[in-house]
Amino acid sequence: MTAQNPIDPDYQARVRTSFAAQTAMSSMQISLLSLAPGHILMRLNRSPNFLQQQGFIHGGVITSALDSACGFAALSLSAKSTEVLSIEFKTSFMAPARSEEIIIEGVVLKSGRRVSFCESKAYEANEEGEERRLIAAMTSSLAHVEVPPDWKPGG
Amino acid sequence: MTAQNPIDPDYQARVRTSFAAQTAMSSMQISLLSLAPGHILMRLNRSPNFLQQQGFIHGGVITSALDSACGFAALSLSAKSTEVLSIEFKTSFMAPARSEEIIIEGVVLKSGRRVSFCESKAYEANEEGEERRLIAAMTSSLAHVEVPPDWKPGG
Amino acid sequence: MTAQNPIDPDYQARVRTSFAAQTAMSSMQISLLSLAPGHILMRLNRSPNFLQQQGFIHGGVITSALDSACGFAALSLSAKSTEVLSIEFKTSFMAPARSEEIIIEGVVLKSGRRVSFCESKAYEANEEGEERRLIAAMTSSLAHVEVPPDWKPGG
Amino acid sequence: MTAQNPIDPDYQARVRTSFAAQTAMSSMQISLLSLAPGHILMRLNRSPNFLQQQGFIHGGVITSALDSACGFAALSLSAKSTEVLSIEFKTSFMAPARSEEIIIEGVVLKSGRRVSFCESKAYEANEEGEERRLIAAMTSSLAHVEVPPDWKPGG
Repeated sequence: MTAQNPIDPDYQARVRTSFAAQTAMSSMQISLLSLAPGHILMRLNRSPNFLQQQGFIHGGVITSALDSACGFAALSLSAKSTEVLSIEFKTSFMAPARSEEIIIEGVVLKSGRRVSFCESKAYEANEEGEERRLIAAMTSSLAHVEVPPDWKPGG
Repeated sequence: MTAQNPIDPDYQARVRTSFAAQTAMSSMQISLLSLAPGHILMRLNRSPNFLQQQGFIHGGVITSALDSACGFAALSLSAKSTEVLSIEFKTSFMAPARSEEIIIEGVVLKSGRRVSFCESKAYEANEEGEERRLIAAMTSSLAHVEVPPDWKPGG
Repeated sequence: MTAQNPIDPDYQARVRTSFAAQTAMSSMQISLLSLAPGHILMRLNRSPNFLQQQGFIHGGVITSALDSACGFAALSLSAKSTEVLSIEFKTSFMAPARSEEIIIEGVVLKSGRRVSFCESKAYEANEEGEERRLIAAMTSSLAHVEVPPDWKPGG
Repeated sequence: MTAQNPIDPDYQARVRTSFAAQTAMSSMQISLLSLAPGHILMRLNRSPNFLQQQGFIHGGVITSALDSACGFAALSLSAKSTEVLSIEFKTSFMAPARSEEIIIEGVVLKSGRRVSFCESKAYEANEEGEERRLIAAMTSSLAHVEVPPDWKPGG
C-alpha cells in the first residue's frame, strides 16, 4: 500500500456524514474511531441481539462492519461527485468472535476511477490483552458511481 | 444438485431450534419460511434501522440472511452430533435492495463430512410483481465441528 | 437466469475469435464446445504437464477454464465495442479432478453495462458414467471496457 | 501475522519436493525463490503460450502461482503427516499483467490443525523499476488432510 492522497480535501466531513446516515451501523453498535485517507478504524460492540446459535457474534454482523470499513476507506479517496457501492466481498472467519469489543481496520489496496479494491480485518484482544487476535478478514471490490450534485446521504 | 437425504431424521426440529437461537435473525427481521433436506427459504423484511447511506438495505444485512441460509441448509444434512461454522463466504451484489420484502433461498451444493459447500440467493419481486429479480448471491464453505452430546443452541 | 438476447448479432464470430486469441487455452488443452447468448460449454483435457503434487489437475488450471468460461459468456452479451476483464473471481473445490476430461459450463447471472456477474462450473463423469460430478465452481464479476474500433484480439 | 514456528523441522525439503512434483509450475514457468516458515516468494515469467486475448498474462495462470504460493506457505507450517488442499480461493485483479517477470509472495494468516488461511500477492516492477506495483491478490482457505506414511508427492 502506497501513500494515498485524497482527491476531495473535505473527505473527512463527507465520509463522516455518510457513516452517520447508515442506520445499520448504530443499530449494530458499530462506531467510527478514526479516519485517514484510505484508512479507517471502527469498533463493533458485542450485543446479545446479534448472535448466532453458539453465542458468537453473527458472521453477517462482523461482515457489516468489515463492508462499511472497506466502503468508507474507498470513499475517503474518491471524487466528491461519486458514491461507492460494493460489487462483491468475501469474508474469511479465522476464529469465533467472543469478545465484548472487536476492532475493525479497513484499507484501500488500489483506488481506481471506476473500481476500487479494499481489504478489512477484525481483531479482538487476546486474554492477556497484549496482542490482538485476527477474527475475520474481508477483501472487496467497489464501483464508483456518479451522484447528482444535490444528492445527500440518507436521502 | 442431486437429491439429498438427511442423516438425522429429526433435522427439522434441530434446524428450527438452531434458527430460533440466532438472535441476529429476529433483530434483523429475518424469518424462516420453509425447510427441506439441503434446501431453505427465508424472508428478510426491510427495516429503517438496517440501511446504508443511500437508503438501500445494508449489504451486511442481506449477507447475514444469505449466510444463515447456507448454514441451515448445510445443518439440515449434517449428523446430529455436529454444528456448522462458516469458513468463508463471498457475496456478489447484482442490484440495490429497495423492496419491503426479500426472499432468500439456500441450497447445498456438496455435503461433506468435514466441509460442505452451499450457495444462497436473494430475490425481490420486480415492479410488475411477475418475475423475481436477483439482488445478491453467496457461495460459502462451512466446517462441520463435533459438539458435546448435551450441547444446546443458544447455550 | 432469464432469457438473454445478444446486443451484437455477430457475437458468435467475435467470441470465437477472442477464444482463439487466448494462447493459454490451447496450451492447457481447453477447447470451446458450444456457445449461445450468455451460455458456454468448454472441455478441459487432463495433461501430465498441468498437475499438482498429488497428481490431480492443478486448481489454477481448472480456474483458467472457469475464468474463460465466465469471460466469454459475458462477452457474448456485451456490445461490439467492449472487451471484458475479470475484476475478481472465487473458485470453490468440491472434489479433486482425476478424470481425463472435464466439462466446463459458464452462464451470465446478470449482464450490466459496466459490470457483469457470471458463474461457471466444472464437472466430470462419475465412474458409472451416468451422472456428472461437480468438481469446482466459480463466481466472478467482470468489467466492460471500451476498446478502439480497430482493436483486434491477440493484438 | 505473528512469528510462526514450523512443526516439522524438515519443512524445507518437504515443501521443495512437493513444489518440484507440481508439473504445472514448470510448464507455466513459475519457480520458487525463497521459503521460510509461513512465507514464500516465487517468480512467474511471462510466456507467449499463457496469455489471454488482449496479450496480458491469463488470470488463471497468475492464479495458479498465487494458489501454489498459498498452498506451500501453509504446507511449511503443517505436520509432516499432512497434505494441504485448497478449499477455495478468491483472486482480485488490480492491474493487467504486462511484465516479463511477476513476483509472487504468499503468507499464512492463520495456521490451523484442520483449516489454514493464507493470502498471496502478485507484483510487477513499475516502469522506473523503483517501486513494485500490485497486480493481483488472493485469499484462500485450505484443508489439512492426513496422508499415508509412505506417501510421496507426484505419486
